[in-house]
Amino acid sequence: MVKVGVIGATGYTGEEIVRILAGHKKVKVTYLSAVIDKEEPISDIFPSLKGSIDIICKKPNTDEAKEKTDLIFLALPHRVSMEIVPKFLKANKKVIDLSADYRLHHDVYKIWYGAEHKDRENLPVAVYGLPEIYHNAIKEARLIANPGCYPTSIILAIAPILNEDAIDTSFIIADSKSGVTGAGRKADIALSFGEVNENLKAYKTNEHQHKPEINKILSAIAEKDIDVIFTPHLIPMNRGILSTVYLKLKNLKMNTRDAIEAYKNFYAGKPFVRIYQEGKFPQTRDVANTNFCDIGVKVTGSVAIVVSCIDNLMKGAAGQAVQNMNIMCGFDETEGLI
Amino acid sequence: MVKVGVIGATGYTGEEIVRILAGHKKVKVTYLSAVIDKEEPISDIFPSLKGSIDIICKKPNTDEAKEKTDLIFLALPHRVSMEIVPKFLKANKKVIDLSADYRLHHDVYKIWYGAEHKDRENLPVAVYGLPEIYHNAIKEARLIANPGCYPTSIILAIAPILNEDAIDTSFIIADSKSGVTGAGRKADIALSFGEVNENLKAYKTNEHQHKPEINKILSAIAEKDIDVIFTPHLIPMNRGILSTVYLKLKNLKMNTRDAIEAYKNFYAGKPFVRIYQEGKFPQTRDVANTNFCDIGVKVTGSVAIVVSCIDNLMKGAAGQAVQNMNIMCGFDETEGLI
Amino acid sequence: MVKVGVIGATGYTGEEIVRILAGHKKVKVTYLSAVIDKEEPISDIFPSLKGSIDIICKKPNTDEAKEKTDLIFLALPHRVSMEIVPKFLKANKKVIDLSADYRLHHDVYKIWYGAEHKDRENLPVAVYGLPEIYHNAIKEARLIANPGCYPTSIILAIAPILNEDAIDTSFIIADSKSGVTGAGRKADIALSFGEVNENLKAYKTNEHQHKPEINKILSAIAEKDIDVIFTPHLIPMNRGILSTVYLKLKNLKMNTRDAIEAYKNFYAGKPFVRIYQEGKFPQTRDVANTNFCDIGVKVTGSVAIVVSCIDNLMKGAAGQAVQNMNIMCGFDETEGLI
Amino acid sequence: MVKVGVIGATGYTGEEIVRILAGHKKVKVTYLSAVIDKEEPISDIFPSLKGSIDIICKKPNTDEAKEKTDLIFLALPHRVSMEIVPKFLKANKKVIDLSADYRLHHDVYKIWYGAEHKDRENLPVAVYGLPEIYHNAIKEARLIANPGCYPTSIILAIAPILNEDAIDTSFIIADSKSGVTGAGRKADIALSFGEVNENLKAYKTNEHQHKPEINKILSAIAEKDIDVIFTPHLIPMNRGILSTVYLKLKNLKMNTRDAIEAYKNFYAGKPFVRIYQEGKFPQTRDVANTNFCDIGVKVTGSVAIVVSCIDNLMKGAAGQAVQNMNIMCGFDETEGLI
Repeated sequence: MVKVGVIGATGYTGEEIVRILAGHKKVKVTYLSAVIDKEEPISDIFPSLKGSIDIICKKPNTDEAKEKTDLIFLALPHRVSMEIVPKFLKANKKVIDLSADYRLHHDVYKIWYGAEHKDRENLPVAVYGLPEIYHNAIKEARLIANPGCYPTSIILAIAPILNEDAIDTSFIIADSKSGVTGAGRKADIALSFGEVNENLKAYKTNEHQHKPEINKILSAIAEKDIDVIFTPHLIPMNRGILSTVYLKLKNLKMNTRDAIEAYKNFYAGKPFVRIYQEGKFPQTRDVANTNFCDIGVKVTGSVAIVVSCIDNLMKGAAGQAVQNMNIMCGFDETEGLI
Repeated sequence: MVKVGVIGATGYTGEEIVRILAGHKKVKVTYLSAVIDKEEPISDIFPSLKGSIDIICKKPNTDEAKEKTDLIFLALPHRVSMEIVPKFLKANKKVIDLSADYRLHHDVYKIWYGAEHKDRENLPVAVYGLPEIYHNAIKEARLIANPGCYPTSIILAIAPILNEDAIDTSFIIADSKSGVTGAGRKADIALSFGEVNENLKAYKTNEHQHKPEINKILSAIAEKDIDVIFTPHLIPMNRGILSTVYLKLKNLKMNTRDAIEAYKNFYAGKPFVRIYQEGKFPQTRDVANTNFCDIGVKVTGSVAIVVSCIDNLMKGAAGQAVQNMNIMCGFDETEGLI
Repeated sequence: MVKVGVIGATGYTGEEIVRILAGHKKVKVTYLSAVIDKEEPISDIFPSLKGSIDIICKKPNTDEAKEKTDLIFLALPHRVSMEIVPKFLKANKKVIDLSADYRLHHDVYKIWYGAEHKDRENLPVAVYGLPEIYHNAIKEARLIANPGCYPTSIILAIAPILNEDAIDTSFIIADSKSGVTGAGRKADIALSFGEVNENLKAYKTNEHQHKPEINKILSAIAEKDIDVIFTPHLIPMNRGILSTVYLKLKNLKMNTRDAIEAYKNFYAGKPFVRIYQEGKFPQTRDVANTNFCDIGVKVTGSVAIVVSCIDNLMKGAAGQAVQNMNIMCGFDETEGLI
Repeated sequence: MVKVGVIGATGYTGEEIVRILAGHKKVKVTYLSAVIDKEEPISDIFPSLKGSIDIICKKPNTDEAKEKTDLIFLALPHRVSMEIVPKFLKANKKVIDLSADYRLHHDVYKIWYGAEHKDRENLPVAVYGLPEIYHNAIKEARLIANPGCYPTSIILAIAPILNEDAIDTSFIIADSKSGVTGAGRKADIALSFGEVNENLKAYKTNEHQHKPEINKILSAIAEKDIDVIFTPHLIPMNRGILSTVYLKLKNLKMNTRDAIEAYKNFYAGKPFVRIYQEGKFPQTRDVANTNFCDIGVKVTGSVAIVVSCIDNLMKGAAGQAVQNMNIMCGFDETEGLI
């Protein structure tokens, strides 16, 4: 049994990791912590966990975390992770970091997250934890930069056809819609029920901090500079991201069937991507509470419309983190997730 | 034109008062303030008001408020109102206070709101602003203690039949369900969308701070001590309170028709209470965005079930406050409200 | 492997049974049917099931169902079940009926469901499938009348203290709040999003068809006639029932701690009931997507307030049905459910 | 007083028209009808209208409607309007048709609405009722084809800059998100709360019936053939449409400020379009229950992102219909709407 821990166990993502790990057959949860007033069983904090996992959620103590675990999940705010990652790596622990701290080059990080990167030593060794693209590197990784929720939904929607060199890479539109838990569990008027319910808004229009992450990975795949137009929207629901991607085709012979074929080939053998048949598109409830990314494609004239759905807390965060752990530890990739 | 102002204009209640006043023909809004970072037009803060009312929302300044207004609405948190009410009264201004500061005897206030009352001088002159019960006193009042949302929905549901001395007053059950804006616009994890949506809870079970207010008014009406059993519940919607009241009948001859008759008589001539015919019950959408309190009644065996609905921001707060202003100023009671 | 089938597999309850059975280790799903236009894989109807269970959902054919299964779940509308139950029993199949057809005496059935009972022969052999009360009878049963969702939440909330003979049984108030899926998947304007969202209503006030079912079981437990006052309310959320029960105490010495003790004793060893400690009450999200019934209790003066929460599709329907199957077949009671 | 009537008064749009007309000072509602079981006061059907308008809602009778009114609103399903419009026009009544029946050329209509057009005589005289574009023609019109909700939000978002000839008109992306009432009040499983809540989907991807309507008007404005890429999405909320439009700029010198200037100029003097200042974008709640269309614009690189918000029942249907009536009848354009 691999001993695992979660730091930041009381956020939406942390809670979800704990829930998955509680049912995982190859690991034992030996440490949980969060910034809390009172140490108490995690199942007192989240009564839904009662009977399933009842260990104490502690106040954060990196040394204790290091001693008690072989692998640690960091479900922490940006800027906090990079303070403690080095300690775990030095102690030869595996780390899966769900913050943005290890996803970007330090120059870009500084621009988008407003702070100097404090762990330039380990930044280059971090592997971007998108298993459908970087499976081999994840296998060998000691530090995973777990992808953001929007990037997961958008990169998976574009990668197969970007690879085909079929599209005009200078004009990629990603219009994303997300449930509210994507913003984390926090006290914020803008996230309060009275503001979000019966309302709909675009926000950070083409200036969301996930944009450089999307650009970086797509550029790496395309082997040329990609700059997507990316508008996120906040939807009055808890969970789910649906991204509608508009791609201008270069290859005008490609029809819907060809495109679907390309997607199926690209994701052949990937257990968590499901490509829909012609004429069908996923809805977020098709993936709710699962680690799947479901994708539908339609070619119309010179445009391909791609719709991808994920559960932002699962494939968009906690589920993908466990998928990465499974690969790193040599477990079945789907263990605990299906 | 009466000059009116709102202190606390950016909360849900304050915003609603501003919206109503903007369309009110007998008053002119001459002052708005709130605890804000930057003074700007209220219509920049709430774009929906654009073109309808565009005056600047200032940082709070009691002296300016006093100079510029004849009547002031205080949409402030508890404990804050009582600090500034004396200044307005001294200057001969009319005050409608939407906090709980002037609703209870100071001993009871201390128990439920955890602070000494700081304005015992004016506390006795405050009139409880429930126009269906205290119309005459409101007419003469200089200081209104505007009722809480739950008390409004519960007192109006019970008063007609309490008056009839028809029920066992020792066992009154009020099971209330409220939308989220009743808790105010504030940063609070418990009010965030992710916690409230797809969830339902009872809270402060029989220990909500509105309980002594309900007891006080019902006791005054019944001329004996009343102690209701009161459980509020938080419902995933923005607006609306539905209270389901269970009353044990003493008068076993009373049937549904008799009860409805009693309610209709009690509220005859009251423009904002609508009694439903036999077999029909109100829903919160019947009163959404209105100042109505709709009531349905059913007698079954020895029990009367009364369902009352209000919009918590209207009849439960801002609408009732304007109704009180109309009565105090000699305007038509419905001006600006229908 | 026990061969099981589901008739009515495309309703909310049927879908949920299929989902649970797909992950159940002791059974094999060998038959699914529903009134559908086109026979296709259940995972085409519900894409979320893709990869988990892909067998064809057929148009209904009782003979085929009988041949292919050892045990059948009937997730059918009232009045339909009683037409086909006899055929399965005659063929020595086990039946778990989720409709109301076998829950009431035929006289009472006729009054509340508006039809003569057509299977009086088997009606008396049906066992009411509430395992926390009737575990032994369920073990021997061939036909289960799976309880209604409201009755499950209310009976479990009252039984422990009804047993203690501690309360005035003539005045029991059950105020229930339910998510919308409790009404089934159907085309009905009253259930449409535009009518339900941002709205709240009481309905069938003290005349809901679950009332005789609640009365029947509570009367059996108390060994005297019980007539609850029961008001259901429709809440704008998908899943969850919260029942707030008000009981008048006879035993005035009982305090909250005593009451909680009584509940804990009553449900000792029952895997799906969790009693909350003093001062805590369950919320529906604590039981969402689980088979738990969570209960909180408070004694205040001469009244006990009991709050119970279930997921209406799980403990209120599909989960409880599988729990019954587990008991009937000698499996672990929690198999497939935790 | 102009005598007005509404046929189809019980749908979402019809109800909204009635609500607006009830407060309109220049007209008198003299006729309401709908396909209903029982003729009763409209305020019994919609209790929220009680006291505001209480006339009987009749079963449909074209002759009675003709006799009693000077101007009629048809809030009917497609294909029904064209059966009765000729009768009203023949009797010299003014007609505002909210269906799609008079919005398209008959050839196009047949393709998208699956039926031959039955009133080719009047089809050419219908005026497309988008006052910000066709004010003068509306003034003289006897028959208004009231625009669809999506087209209103999209055309208003594009027209100012299409006019400037600033964009690549061959690649216009309109990604729209709509609340559920846009689909009308009807019994349909796909619109039921359980299907829509906590879910998000694209639907009719680039094949929604509003696409030819958008294309027709944009083509007329641009004086060249326009074919937008249009994907509508269903959002779990009652009211509101937000359209995010992506335009590829030809004029690379235009920055955000220039674009906003162009929008402000285009809509100068139009009372119901509000252009947001640089850096701000509208949310649907900014226009909820109003007839406004709020628009925000951002230029980034060679792309303009335009976000427009309307209330689908107001500016997207009933409000715009009344705005058209105001113009046709020579009333103040905003009468009853502000």
